[in-house]
Amino acid sequence: MQNLLPYILKHDHIARLEDRRIFITDRRVFPFEKTEVMCTGYNDVANAIKAMVTQGGGPLEAALIAMLHTYRYDKDNLYDAFQTLSASRSTNTTMLRTLKELMTRHSDGEDFEEVVDELFKRFDARYDKMSDYGESVINDGDGILTTCFPEHSFILSVAKAMKNGKNVRVYVPETRPYLQGAHLTEPSLRELGIECYLITDGMPAHFMACGDIKLYMTAADLALNDRTVVNKTGTLSNAIAAKYHNINYYAFSAGIDYSKKREDIHLEYRSGDEVKIYHGIELAEKSAKAIYPCFDIIPAELVKGIITEDGILS
Amino acid sequence: MQNLLPYILKHDHIARLEDRRIFITDRRVFPFEKTEVMCTGYNDVANAIKAMVTQGGGPLEAALIAMLHTYRYDKDNLYDAFQTLSASRSTNTTMLRTLKELMTRHSDGEDFEEVVDELFKRFDARYDKMSDYGESVINDGDGILTTCFPEHSFILSVAKAMKNGKNVRVYVPETRPYLQGAHLTEPSLRELGIECYLITDGMPAHFMACGDIKLYMTAADLALNDRTVVNKTGTLSNAIAAKYHNINYYAFSAGIDYSKKREDIHLEYRSGDEVKIYHGIELAEKSAKAIYPCFDIIPAELVKGIITEDGILS
Repeated sequence: MQNLLPYILKHDHIARLEDRRIFITDRRVFPFEKTEVMCTGYNDVANAIKAMVTQGGGPLEAALIAMLHTYRYDKDNLYDAFQTLSASRSTNTTMLRTLKELMTRHSDGEDFEEVVDELFKRFDARYDKMSDYGESVINDGDGILTTCFPEHSFILSVAKAMKNGKNVRVYVPETRPYLQGAHLTEPSLRELGIECYLITDGMPAHFMACGDIKLYMTAADLALNDRTVVNKTGTLSNAIAAKYHNINYYAFSAGIDYSKKREDIHLEYRSGDEVKIYHGIELAEKSAKAIYPCFDIIPAELVKGIITEDGILS
Repeated sequence: MQNLLPYILKHDHIARLEDRRIFITDRRVFPFEKTEVMCTGYNDVANAIKAMVTQGGGPLEAALIAMLHTYRYDKDNLYDAFQTLSASRSTNTTMLRTLKELMTRHSDGEDFEEVVDELFKRFDARYDKMSDYGESVINDGDGILTTCFPEHSFILSVAKAMKNGKNVRVYVPETRPYLQGAHLTEPSLRELGIECYLITDGMPAHFMACGDIKLYMTAADLALNDRTVVNKTGTLSNAIAAKYHNINYYAFSAGIDYSKKREDIHLEYRSGDEVKIYHGIELAEKSAKAIYPCFDIIPAELVKGIITEDGILS
């Protein structure tokens, strides 16, 4: 499966342990630069996650590597590492659950390093299964819309569809303010030889109206049992436009959160400066007031199905 | 009325004639710089329009000033000026119709300069009436969404609502790739003391879902008699989201085009480089394929009304 993945999604290019230090690929400067942020311990990793050095499924892998590092070199602080890393991206429930499982199994007497290794393997297997289900809803000739950086499950789904002889193309909204679409998704698809087109975040509805987009697929930062999805800002707008054009919307979820209800969802707001300033360049005047709600809540009625490792919840 | 207008919409700051030259305010660098592009004649003006130095209602005023300049200093080329300017922004039907009217009335014996003067006054009166109708659909407490730079009619509507004691706030999508929302709309509203928030183009649906947005209003590059609207990319997506949330969408039109049908609409595509490169800064890799359809077609069923000088067509 690793050979179907682009550079940015291979394990070592997400986060790796070397010489008692943790190296996290800096997704903020990719694809223009392939550099890593060096971390000396879990606090550095938590700060890197907060600073968006890595995102999506990246924090999970970086946090696991940070836990492994703490276990090896700073064992007394293992519980503090667990808490600090868990707090670094409170919306990432998969990360929270996985770190909790690691701590529980360790306190139940399982070998820490073996559990970490098993967790990595479990996620690989999960992505493999999810992308089989994802591939199954892609038809030959489809134009597929995505949003943000939908990572392993989506990229593998499309790569497998292409491998199976399906002729597909992907429309990639740039995903402001961080431009994950332009910086992560488009280069990854292109690296794999998948036909893809970069567009701005306002354009998807146009290509739906033209009949060029036949399917909408994204990741999900959070998915509830009633099919409510939480994902990057912009996802809701596209899901509504998809519904209007009778286009199916599927969200990939590495694990449905059965503990949460819609009213429990607390959306993260980040600084409006992140809308106004891009890599030090002022896109708007300093005195402008900008707001940045990071995520959208997509109601179940707009979601055709949630693609999990166990099948499609619809 | 001019005192209710922000800097960028005052006549002299759109285009002015001075010392046999035409000066057009460069909207591409506003609000960071207040500079003008100097034109020596209609060819320069046509090129400036093509290069997006001015947009929206700007080309109309710049073209009228260029015609006046040609009449005064280069009369033999008046017909060529008419043709060249008309071709500089083929989607701007108001400009095309107005230039045609000027030529016809001049060839019918009317005084050229008087006709130009009358046309300017007519547009001022039109904006004044349109904004009265616009103001009438704004309720106290409304959060209003717009897209791109909706110019006189919208800005005057909101300014009049505020003057009439209505407490309103405007959500302004930045409008990639040119960022007219961030560079023109938000600074103009702020200059007038209107509460406004800059957001990215993917965020409007979120604020609709929250109940913060109660009304959607844009300009229209083209409006048909059946209420079909053509406007900047992103407008369709927001119009669909507005419909989904039972929010009324109104488009301002300085003149409905009775000559065109939906199937006659030919949308302009610009270079994908404009998506990839912002003011010389690469937002995406050179080898990425980007597409830039400039406009959306908004079907009549999504449009509550078209606000004209004669009332609201609904």
